[in-house]
Amino acid sequence: MSEIGEFGLIDVVAGLVGAEEKTGEAWRNLIIGIGDDAAAWQGEAGVQLATVDALVQDIHFKLDLTSWEELGWKSLAINLSDIAAMGGSPRYALVSLALPGDIDVRDIVFFYQGMLSVARQFEVAIAGGNISRAPLVIINITVFGNAAGASDKLLTRSSARAGDKVAVTGHLGAAASGLEMLTRGLQFDAGSAAMLRRAFLQPSPRVSEGKVLAQRGVRTAIDISDGLVSDLGHICKASQVGACIRVADLPVEPAVKANFGPRALEFALSGGEDYELLFTAPAQVIEVVKATLQPMGCPVTVIGEMVHDRDARVTVLDENGKEFELPKAGWDHFATGKHGV
Amino acid sequence: MSEIGEFGLIDVVAGLVGAEEKTGEAWRNLIIGIGDDAAAWQGEAGVQLATVDALVQDIHFKLDLTSWEELGWKSLAINLSDIAAMGGSPRYALVSLALPGDIDVRDIVFFYQGMLSVARQFEVAIAGGNISRAPLVIINITVFGNAAGASDKLLTRSSARAGDKVAVTGHLGAAASGLEMLTRGLQFDAGSAAMLRRAFLQPSPRVSEGKVLAQRGVRTAIDISDGLVSDLGHICKASQVGACIRVADLPVEPAVKANFGPRALEFALSGGEDYELLFTAPAQVIEVVKATLQPMGCPVTVIGEMVHDRDARVTVLDENGKEFELPKAGWDHFATGKHGV
Repeated sequence: MSEIGEFGLIDVVAGLVGAEEKTGEAWRNLIIGIGDDAAAWQGEAGVQLATVDALVQDIHFKLDLTSWEELGWKSLAINLSDIAAMGGSPRYALVSLALPGDIDVRDIVFFYQGMLSVARQFEVAIAGGNISRAPLVIINITVFGNAAGASDKLLTRSSARAGDKVAVTGHLGAAASGLEMLTRGLQFDAGSAAMLRRAFLQPSPRVSEGKVLAQRGVRTAIDISDGLVSDLGHICKASQVGACIRVADLPVEPAVKANFGPRALEFALSGGEDYELLFTAPAQVIEVVKATLQPMGCPVTVIGEMVHDRDARVTVLDENGKEFELPKAGWDHFATGKHGV
Repeated sequence: MSEIGEFGLIDVVAGLVGAEEKTGEAWRNLIIGIGDDAAAWQGEAGVQLATVDALVQDIHFKLDLTSWEELGWKSLAINLSDIAAMGGSPRYALVSLALPGDIDVRDIVFFYQGMLSVARQFEVAIAGGNISRAPLVIINITVFGNAAGASDKLLTRSSARAGDKVAVTGHLGAAASGLEMLTRGLQFDAGSAAMLRRAFLQPSPRVSEGKVLAQRGVRTAIDISDGLVSDLGHICKASQVGACIRVADLPVEPAVKANFGPRALEFALSGGEDYELLFTAPAQVIEVVKATLQPMGCPVTVIGEMVHDRDARVTVLDENGKEFELPKAGWDHFATGKHGV
C-alpha cells in the first residue's frame, strides 16, 4: 500500500466495486456510492436495521489460516447473519479497513472479491467505507437492512417466554472443528476437510430462513456466534427466563462426530461461529417453521424449552437427564465471537 | 476491561446510553438500541445517508495528547461533519471499539460522555455498536442520516462547474496549529491555548450550515479533513474541473496568525481537520448563502473559483498573482485525515 497510498487503494477498490453487475433493489436505489463524504440511497418505508462487527487480526482471524478471499467472505457474511437474526433483508454495506503500510494491494483485491461474492448472492450493495493505516489488519463492516414487516414482526433477544420451545437451524459444531483442524493441522479426508474449512471461513448467513421465521410468527432469535450455550444465555438474560436443552437432541454435524468423536459435543455447545439461527417460539409455531424450512433444505431441530428462572440460567441435560458439565478450558478458541453493544 | 470482560463493558455502556435524556426524532423512532443482533428504527422517507470513519491510536490520535472525553467528542463529531457535507441531518450512530485488555473502564465512560455531549447537541441516537479486543485502541463510528430533500438537493463532490466560486465556512488553520501546540508543548496565552486545543480535539460539525447550503441551491461541498488544498483537489478530481484560490483571501484564524506568524498560512492550506465546509456554487448562490449564514454567526468567505482544467489541478496564487509553492515537508502531521472509500 505504501507505493500507491490510501487514495490509490481507494481507486482500486472503487474500480472493483464499480465493475460489479449491479442487480437487486439496493443497487437500484443507491444514489451515491464510493467516493463522496457519505453514501446515499433512496430510503424504503418500514423498519430499518443496522449492525456492525469488527474482525481484528490475531484475535478473530490469523492470516496464516485464512486466504484473503475467505476473509472478505466471512467479514461480510457475519454481518448479514446479524440482519438475518432480526428477520430482515440486508441492503448496504460500509467497509472500514485498517491496514499495515506493507500490505499487498493484490490481497485487498482478493478480500474484495470474497466480499463481493457474498454481496452478489444476497444482493447487498457495497456503498462506501474507509481506509486507514494501522499496525495490524482490522476490518469493521456495517450493514444496513430492511425489516419485512412492522416492528412487532422483528426477531429480538428479549421476547422469549417460559414454555417456548428452543430450536436451531442446520447443524452445529462444524465451524469450531474447522478452526481446530486448521490450528492443529489435522488431516481428514478431502470432503470433510473442505467442508470444515468452509464452515469456519465461509459461513452462509441464514437470510431467507430469518425472514421465514419472522413471517411465520417467531419473535425471538439470535445467530450463533459466541456458541450455542452462550448465545442462548443472551436470550435468557434479555428475556428474563431460563432455558433447558438436551444434549441428545443437538443436531451435531455428522462429519464432526465422525472426525472428532466425543469432542463433537463440546464444539456444538460452546464452539461458536456456526452462524445458524437459534430461536424460540410456541410448539405450533415451530412446527409451521419446520414445515416451511425443511423443504427449502434447511433442517430445524427442537433442542429444549424456555423455563421460568429468575436467574436466567441455561441448563444442559445429558442422556440421563442429569446436568451436563460444560468443559471450561478446552480447545484454544482465538475467535472470541461477536460482542454487539 | 480484563476484570469485567467485554460483556461487562457492554453493560456499562448500555447503562450510560440508557440514562440519556432521549429527545429528538432519532430517539423517538428508535425501536431497538444497544443489546440485540442489530439496531432497529422506524425509517423516514427520502434519501438516506451513511458514513464511517476510523480513528487509530498513534495514527489519528495519541492518548497523551487527548483526554478520553475529547476523543469521544471528536470521534462522533467528524462523522457528523461528513453528513453535514452532504447537506443532511445525522440520526443514528453505531460505535465499534477495539480496546486493549488493560484499558480502564472509567476511560471508556469518559469516552462515552464526550460522545454523548455531541450526540445530545445534534439529537443523534447511539443505537448500537461492537466491542472487541485489540493491541491498540481503534474507534470506528458509523453514522446514518437523512437528507432533507430529494437526491438532486444533495451536496456532492462531483457537481462543481467551471465558473463556480469557491467558498468556505468559518476560519482555517486552528486545528492544525492546535496539534502543533500540543505535540511541541508550545505555550500561549490561556485563551488562545484553549481555543486551539478545542479546535483540534473538539471540532464542531457544521450540520445546520450544511442544510442551509443544500436548501439555498449549493450542490457541491466537502468537509475539510485532509486539508483545504487536498480536499479541494477531491472536488476537482470528482468534478473534472480545476480550481484557483488566492492566499490573500483565506480566512486564516486570527489567533493562529497571532501565534504562528507566517506558518499560519501553511496550517490553513494543508493542515486539515478544521471540519469547515468547503463548497462551490455560482456567485449569486454564494451571496444568498452568505446572507443566511452570517447572521447565524457563521462566516462565509469566497477564496477563489473553479476553472476549466482537464488535469483537475488546484492552483494557489500568492499576493502577487504568482503560483504559491506549498511547503512539502513541514510540521509532523500524524493525523493523516480521513480516507473515505
